[in-house]
Amino acid sequence: MDKKIKLVLSYDGSLYHGWQIQQNANTLQAVLEEGLEKMLGSPVRVFASGRTDAGVHALEQVVHFVTSSPMDPATLRNGLNALLPEDMLVKQAGYVETDFHARYSVRSKVYEYRILNAEAPDIFQRSHVWYMRRGLDKSEMRGCLCTLLGCHDFSSFKSAGSGNRNPVRTIHRAELLSEDDGLVRITMEADGFLRHMVRNIVGTLVEVGKGKMSATRFVEILESGDRRQAGPKAPARGLFLVKVNY
Amino acid sequence: MDKKIKLVLSYDGSLYHGWQIQQNANTLQAVLEEGLEKMLGSPVRVFASGRTDAGVHALEQVVHFVTSSPMDPATLRNGLNALLPEDMLVKQAGYVETDFHARYSVRSKVYEYRILNAEAPDIFQRSHVWYMRRGLDKSEMRGCLCTLLGCHDFSSFKSAGSGNRNPVRTIHRAELLSEDDGLVRITMEADGFLRHMVRNIVGTLVEVGKGKMSATRFVEILESGDRRQAGPKAPARGLFLVKVNY
Repeated sequence: MDKKIKLVLSYDGSLYHGWQIQQNANTLQAVLEEGLEKMLGSPVRVFASGRTDAGVHALEQVVHFVTSSPMDPATLRNGLNALLPEDMLVKQAGYVETDFHARYSVRSKVYEYRILNAEAPDIFQRSHVWYMRRGLDKSEMRGCLCTLLGCHDFSSFKSAGSGNRNPVRTIHRAELLSEDDGLVRITMEADGFLRHMVRNIVGTLVEVGKGKMSATRFVEILESGDRRQAGPKAPARGLFLVKVNY
Repeated sequence: MDKKIKLVLSYDGSLYHGWQIQQNANTLQAVLEEGLEKMLGSPVRVFASGRTDAGVHALEQVVHFVTSSPMDPATLRNGLNALLPEDMLVKQAGYVETDFHARYSVRSKVYEYRILNAEAPDIFQRSHVWYMRRGLDKSEMRGCLCTLLGCHDFSSFKSAGSGNRNPVRTIHRAELLSEDDGLVRITMEADGFLRHMVRNIVGTLVEVGKGKMSATRFVEILESGDRRQAGPKAPARGLFLVKVNY
């Protein structure tokens, strides 16, 4: 009988052309499906909580798939971890109810964006942070993050290709934590995110942090619904999908 | 007039065939000398505090070279950092006295070996730690490290190719620090190290930590002077040259 299995994955997106399968490109979905086919003996189609773009990482991405294989999830997880490349790890595997869907059952998602704001770059973190030397006014940035809380039309912070979907999202959490070594972590939790929304928000927020834009202007941009007014998109390398809540 | 310049470098050794220039191999020295030639307009030969092997990293490696260029060291540093690949960084550059020699003036060197001893590997640190799931008896390992302090013949922990040099070294510091997230840092400071000495010591120490070897046996191996008795060499990826003291 067919069973539904849920996997929680961690991956370093540095060397991939994003999550979704594409012709002639190394993608995370393709690598995972290949591994699953080897383990289970037949082709498998996986469904993720959402795509991540090229260079974006995941501490916890969630996928599901259906299989008729009797292999128990723990054996599958260990086997996959032996097969998969070193930049991808299956953290958990388990059966789920048939009505679970990795994408449609999502209650909220948490993303973190990491900026390294220090005198010198850290070469060991080069693929996992956006480095900037110039000091950031974190208090101004925190003020802007605060204005994002609640229910808003985020059209100003979506990228082309978002489709005609409803641009209203509810932000449950938007905070900035700053560590002694210069690492700045911007965390956002929402019921969902538009395409490039976190990176567009962070790119604009950094303009405020650098003093190139006022916090008032940030709010105007949010309210304008006009993407052309927002700042540049922050690079993919600093973005982590941290958790998907169901 | 010729001037002597000292550079302090940081590099991620993951993608290199070690420090020293070799035919048809990507080495750190070759990349640095290429960058220097571009900046200074003529070929430069650099001298390092010592070679690091393929896959070994440096938080602070020291090199010197002689040049007739009038370019000031700060300009040189900034220019190099714009030219060099992202896995190499010039932290400092400055003039030194003509009798300074990056290798022969060394008073002591500090190496750190990083083990990740946790339930699951950390894919973001995969090139910078030796991952092992099995718990280590850190107290036994600390006991062994303690016996290394002072002046010893380290023949048991040198690899072939060390040459006929005097195998006696003085260890000033040998300690193990353990962090909450499972990171274990083994730090050793000595007046010098034989070829693969840190990796051979750590490999043997891990045998003790896993309970496969007694601490008494560790001391016997040190005293035996026989490399064949020691444990396997720890992988390069966990090793960092931390500091060179002059």
